[in-house]
Formats: sequence, C-alpha cells, structure tokens
Amino acid sequence: MALDLDRIGAAHERIRPHIKRTLVMTSSRLNEASGASLFFKCENFQKIGAFKARGATNAIFSLDDVAAQHGVATHSSGNHGAAVARAAKLRGISAHIVMPSNSAKVKVRAVESYGAHVVFCEPTEKARQEKCAEAIKKTGATLIHSFENEDVIAGQGTAAVELLEDVSDLDVVTCPVGGGGLLAGTAIAAKSLRSRIKVIAVEPENVDDAAQSYRAGRRLVTEKKFTIADGLRTNIGEPNFAIIQRYVDDIVTASEEAIVEAMRTIWETMKIIIEPSAAVPYAAIQEGKIDIAGRRIGIILTGGNVDLDALPWNQ
Amino acid sequence: MALDLDRIGAAHERIRPHIKRTLVMTSSRLNEASGASLFFKCENFQKIGAFKARGATNAIFSLDDVAAQHGVATHSSGNHGAAVARAAKLRGISAHIVMPSNSAKVKVRAVESYGAHVVFCEPTEKARQEKCAEAIKKTGATLIHSFENEDVIAGQGTAAVELLEDVSDLDVVTCPVGGGGLLAGTAIAAKSLRSRIKVIAVEPENVDDAAQSYRAGRRLVTEKKFTIADGLRTNIGEPNFAIIQRYVDDIVTASEEAIVEAMRTIWETMKIIIEPSAAVPYAAIQEGKIDIAGRRIGIILTGGNVDLDALPWNQ
Repeated sequence: MALDLDRIGAAHERIRPHIKRTLVMTSSRLNEASGASLFFKCENFQKIGAFKARGATNAIFSLDDVAAQHGVATHSSGNHGAAVARAAKLRGISAHIVMPSNSAKVKVRAVESYGAHVVFCEPTEKARQEKCAEAIKKTGATLIHSFENEDVIAGQGTAAVELLEDVSDLDVVTCPVGGGGLLAGTAIAAKSLRSRIKVIAVEPENVDDAAQSYRAGRRLVTEKKFTIADGLRTNIGEPNFAIIQRYVDDIVTASEEAIVEAMRTIWETMKIIIEPSAAVPYAAIQEGKIDIAGRRIGIILTGGNVDLDALPWNQ
Repeated sequence: MALDLDRIGAAHERIRPHIKRTLVMTSSRLNEASGASLFFKCENFQKIGAFKARGATNAIFSLDDVAAQHGVATHSSGNHGAAVARAAKLRGISAHIVMPSNSAKVKVRAVESYGAHVVFCEPTEKARQEKCAEAIKKTGATLIHSFENEDVIAGQGTAAVELLEDVSDLDVVTCPVGGGGLLAGTAIAAKSLRSRIKVIAVEPENVDDAAQSYRAGRRLVTEKKFTIADGLRTNIGEPNFAIIQRYVDDIVTASEEAIVEAMRTIWETMKIIIEPSAAVPYAAIQEGKIDIAGRRIGIILTGGNVDLDALPWNQ
C-alpha cells in the first residue's frame, strides 16, 4: 500500500480510539510579536506527552495477529520508547525497549509503567542496535523503528491532518526534523490536502544533517554536536529523506540560544510546557528564518516531556 | 442591584468581548490517581494569565463615564494590578497601580506594558493603602479593590458560570481562597445554577484565616506566615466573608509541601503552567482533605504567572 493520504487516513481511523485529538492554541501576544497568525498544534497534550504516540500506535495495531503475538521491540531513550510500550500494552502484547544505561530515571519509569521490558545497553548507537537485534532474535518480536517505518510515518502524519481540518487556509506548516518521521508524514498529509501549502522543517543548527542533505540532494551523515533539543539528535532516515526531497519546501536551522529562548517564551506566554525539541520551529521564526509576515502558520508542538529539575535556563 | 446570578450574568455579557472563554481540561492520569473525575477550568490561559482579568474588567467597564474619566487606582503586587492596568487601557482611561518597591521586575513590567502609572511604596499593607488613597485624592480616580468590590466579585463569578455550562452534573466545585473575591463569585454562581453542588474552598495551612473565620462564624485576622501561594497571603474581605458564610460548604487547608507537589504534578502530567496559588485545591485533594471518591469535581486553576527563574522545587 502506497504511503499516501489514504494510508494516513487509515492510520487515523485505526489509532483514533487510542490517542487524543489535541487542541490547536493561538496567542494574541505571539501573533503581535511575530506579525503573523500562528496556530499551535499541541501534541505536548498527546498521550505519553508527545506525537510519537500516533506512529507507534499505528504500527503496532497494523501488525497481523501472528506477528503481534511475538511482541515488539525498539531502541529509544525518549518518547518513542514510551509510545511503543503504551501501544503494546493497549494491544495486550509484550514490548522490549532498549534504552541507554544513562537514560533519565523518569524516562525508564515511564516505559516500565506500561509493563514493558527495559533492556539497558551502552549509550552508543551501535550498542542500541545490537541489543535490539538480540532481543528480536530471542523473542521473534517485530522491530518498531522510531522513524524508518512506513506505518510510523503514516501515524505521525495524522497530526497534520487534524491541524488542517481545524484551521482553514494555512499558508505554511512547520515542524522540527530529527529522523524525519513526523516531517515525512506531515509533508505527505499537508501537500495532499492543500497543494499550495508550504512545508518548512526546522533543525537545530548543531545537528543540521537534514538541511545539508536537502541542499546536497543526497543523504549526508554529519558530525553530531550537542543540542538541547534532545529529540532531534538523530540523523535523517532513508525512506524519510526520499519523501522529504519530494514534498518539503525548505529546511532551515535554529541556534541553541534561540531554541532556549523560544521554549521560555512559549512557557511564559502560552502557559504550556513544551520540550526543547518542540520549541525549534518557533525559534526559527524568532530568528527570521521563515517568511511568515501576514501569513497563517501551523506549528506542530511536538512534545512536553521535560525534566523540571534541569531546565535549560537554570543550567 | 443585588449581588446574585443575574448580576454575574450581566458581568459576563459586559466582559465577554475582552476576556477569553478558557477551556476545561481533563487528565485520565489524574482521574485514575484520584479516583474521581476532575475538570480543570484553565484560567491560567486567561488574559493577563489569571482569572483576575474578569473582575477588574467588569468593575472598570461598570463605571459611569464621569467617574471613568478620572481613571482608576488599586494596590496590588500581583495579577490584579495587571488586570486593572489592562482593563483601563481597553476602556481608554488612566490607571494608577500602587506596588511594593520589592515587587518582581517582571510584574512591574507587565503593569507598565499596559501604559499604567506605577506608584511604588514600602512593602507594608499600611503603606500600600496610604499611597493608594493619596493617588485617589490627587486624581479623583476610583478605587478598584481586588476583592472588596461587588463588581469584582460578580466578574470573578463568571468563571464558574462557564465551568458549569461546559461540564454537566458537577458534584463539587473548588477554588482557592485569599481575599475571597473568586470564592464569593464562584459560590453565588454555582449554588444558583445548581443548588445541590458543594462549594469547597481551599486555603494554605499557613494563612488559614478564612478557614478559622468560617468555623468561628466571625471574621478573624490571623498572624500571617509565609506561603508559596503568594496570591493567597491576604486576609478575607468583609463582604466576601458574609457571602462565604451563606453559600460555601467548607473551607479546608493544604500544606506547603502538598502545594509544591501538586503544582509539579499538574505541570508534569497536564503539561500546563500554573502558579502555586492555583495548585492549592489539587493539593488538598492529594492530602485527602476533600471527599471526592467517584464524584465529578470542578477545579478552578486560577493563574499561570510564575517566575521561571525561581521555581519552588529548585529552591
């Protein structure tokens, strides 16, 4: 089945009983400050506190019963792990979540609270993949990759469907890009529903592999530097990049300072909690990287899972 | 005109163009944790970040033109000052806001951003009242007291009207009590709309003058101790207490520890920012002070203005 709007629609039907239809918030202050009309899709209010609940739920509820009975596995130190754990619990199957040994305790507890098996590994990409492969070999579980998975991409695209249903005449839709699951789903959904919409992705300056790849026309692996936007440290995925090349209008970057400032501005002005990764598009807006003057801009606020003991402005 | 549901309805009509109809949020996690159905009226999303916008706007738009042309005055170090400043700007009249010299800069800037005159005074109750009387004598401005004012009380009551409109069959409505403006308005509105609803107020244990007065049957002035819920440090007002005696079913208290924990729980679980005063009712619920088992509980989250550089769990 092609990865198109119909497939995203089917995903939406499949996951609807298990996810929230999150609200779209506006802020007269931020509209005034930016000179545009901003529409924030609040996936920080989504189940597990992030849009990742959409893709994982779609992937896990798409499995046939034979595959499902052997459970699912993934490696993730963040929201995808919790999303897979929750969806597996909802389907009544086992989940094996490989997490780096240095993961924040609150994240480990979140995964365990859904009854998943946590498998610790060294905090390297290689160790994560090996441990996960091992768990799969032992159990016959199905890998639910956090972005290189068409069902995951289709699930993530449902956020943009809701946003475009709730807000008419959007000129631009923007979201952060890490592995590219959300961006690929958003781009397919938005361009299919409204061909003249612009899809603009934003990436932290310090991990700008997607922006560089987009300009080069081929997938580049770049040196990973630190970013406060911990959900976006990963390089862009293979199928994701192909979709992005086809549907996305631009990928711009935001500085670390702007990300922290944008996060704080949204907390203070909108009184909602978003995680650093979710602040990246508004950071680019504050830095003048997106042409928004007088336009209607949809912004996907991707998540709200933050360690309140380690806020970036208290570091 | 009597202070009744009709007057609250008139206030609602009057302020509707100038305030937000805030949403009511629910949390399946907090419902599970508490064994009840909780409905949070999100006045942290209100204009100026707190319910105080309602009462101040009603009072200022209720002035006749002759009185209005001399402006308004109040003393407040918090949300009421910003609310008066904003409403005066909307009506196009001057506002004199007396603030203690040690007020947080962010609060002073908020008031100034609406074009109000800030008058600084020594940080004592006496100095505040004197400076305010002085400003009124000089300008002929009308005092807009933050709670001992029937129009303010009627305005604050509009939050409960919306809550009861949006959520059917509430068994209990609960809100914090400081001076008693919100509580008086809430009690009149809730009992008039639904006679069998219980109205339960919550006060910080450290400033329990309202709870003590309620039990004694007369207004007591108690020693003021510190509370993190800075919006609730004031003693209960005279007209407020009379209304509360008549309409309120109970006043319970919450400990400082429970207030901080409740605030953090709501931030982490609901991904919304509330100020310490707004956490007080949920703190009492967590401490088992309100009989909620299996019931439908409306909770007014009063505001979301927090200094992000001084969070209580980082002190």
